Amino acid sequence: MSHDATDREVLSWSLFGTAVRELATRIAADGYRPEVLLGIARGGLPLVAGLAYALDVKTTATINVEFYTGVDSRLPEPVVLPPSVDLADLAGRRVLVVDDVADTGRTLAVVVALVRATGAETRTAVVYEKPSTRVDPEYAWRSTDRWIDFPWSAEGPVPGLADLPAGDAPLTDAPA
Amino acid sequence: MSHDATDREVLSWSLFGTAVRELATRIAADGYRPEVLLGIARGGLPLVAGLAYALDVKTTATINVEFYTGVDSRLPEPVVLPPSVDLADLAGRRVLVVDDVADTGRTLAVVVALVRATGAETRTAVVYEKPSTRVDPEYAWRSTDRWIDFPWSAEGPVPGLADLPAGDAPLTDAPA
Repeated sequence: MSHDATDREVLSWSLFGTAVRELATRIAADGYRPEVLLGIARGGLPLVAGLAYALDVKTTATINVEFYTGVDSRLPEPVVLPPSVDLADLAGRRVLVVDDVADTGRTLAVVVALVRATGAETRTAVVYEKPSTRVDPEYAWRSTDRWIDFPWSAEGPVPGLADLPAGDAPLTDAPA
Repeated sequence: MSHDATDREVLSWSLFGTAVRELATRIAADGYRPEVLLGIARGGLPLVAGLAYALDVKTTATINVEFYTGVDSRLPEPVVLPPSVDLADLAGRRVLVVDDVADTGRTLAVVVALVRATGAETRTAVVYEKPSTRVDPEYAWRSTDRWIDFPWSAEGPVPGLADLPAGDAPLTDAPA
């Protein structure tokens, strides 16, 4: 599917910096202070990085969830991939689950269920939420139904990448 | 220790975006393509987020290492904190260990040793390296001996954070 300039929400790195401060200010004003930020990789990593400092949270973790395989192309269900984080370490903690966007909300729902199963209390934070989401994040910077150009992904990978297995390839026993 | 404007290297979010592309271009030109990006939290998270997309690497992980407790204030040795990531999942992989800055290099050295012990092949990437580092990262965007203002930490936490235990506090059995 192609996306014209008119139906795009364009987030620059600079505006992302503003989003982090505004979202953190809203979270602080809500009286909520997470003990752990759990970022859904890869999209949630920039917001985790920003909120960790803006909310003064030292403990972070990453969970790899594969759902989108391309623009508007999805796997049947979100799948958690290695390397795995020891979610048992989160038991009893206030965990803020962080992603870039709540689109269908299914990825967030899968991760929230996994974390709650450890006995943690969870809330969710995203940069954008879409009207289509089935999970309403407690904290969303903005709502949009447009295609979003994020500053970390809009340009695509740099040219000239070596033709080697990338991070989603099977284990090789002869690393280059 | 105070740092005047004249002895500061100021990185904006926008310039950080440029740094990510330039560093990724250099890594690609070197013929290196990691299978896993391992970010040292918290400082390494923004660069992991950027490089994951720019280098087309889907697998990321986070390791929490505490060393700095404030400006120019350090623990005796870097300490790895929970939640733990299953480093055994990295065996045989090309792992790029990522941080914001190689200052003394001791944090990078600790993490590289942990990852190599699993049988992974490691390289390191940072935004800045300092002349004082004992570990020379394979990939550093710039070298400086000045204090660095990173866009994610320069402003400090937002005001009004609730007086609740943050992410480095002991486990509580009564989350708010």
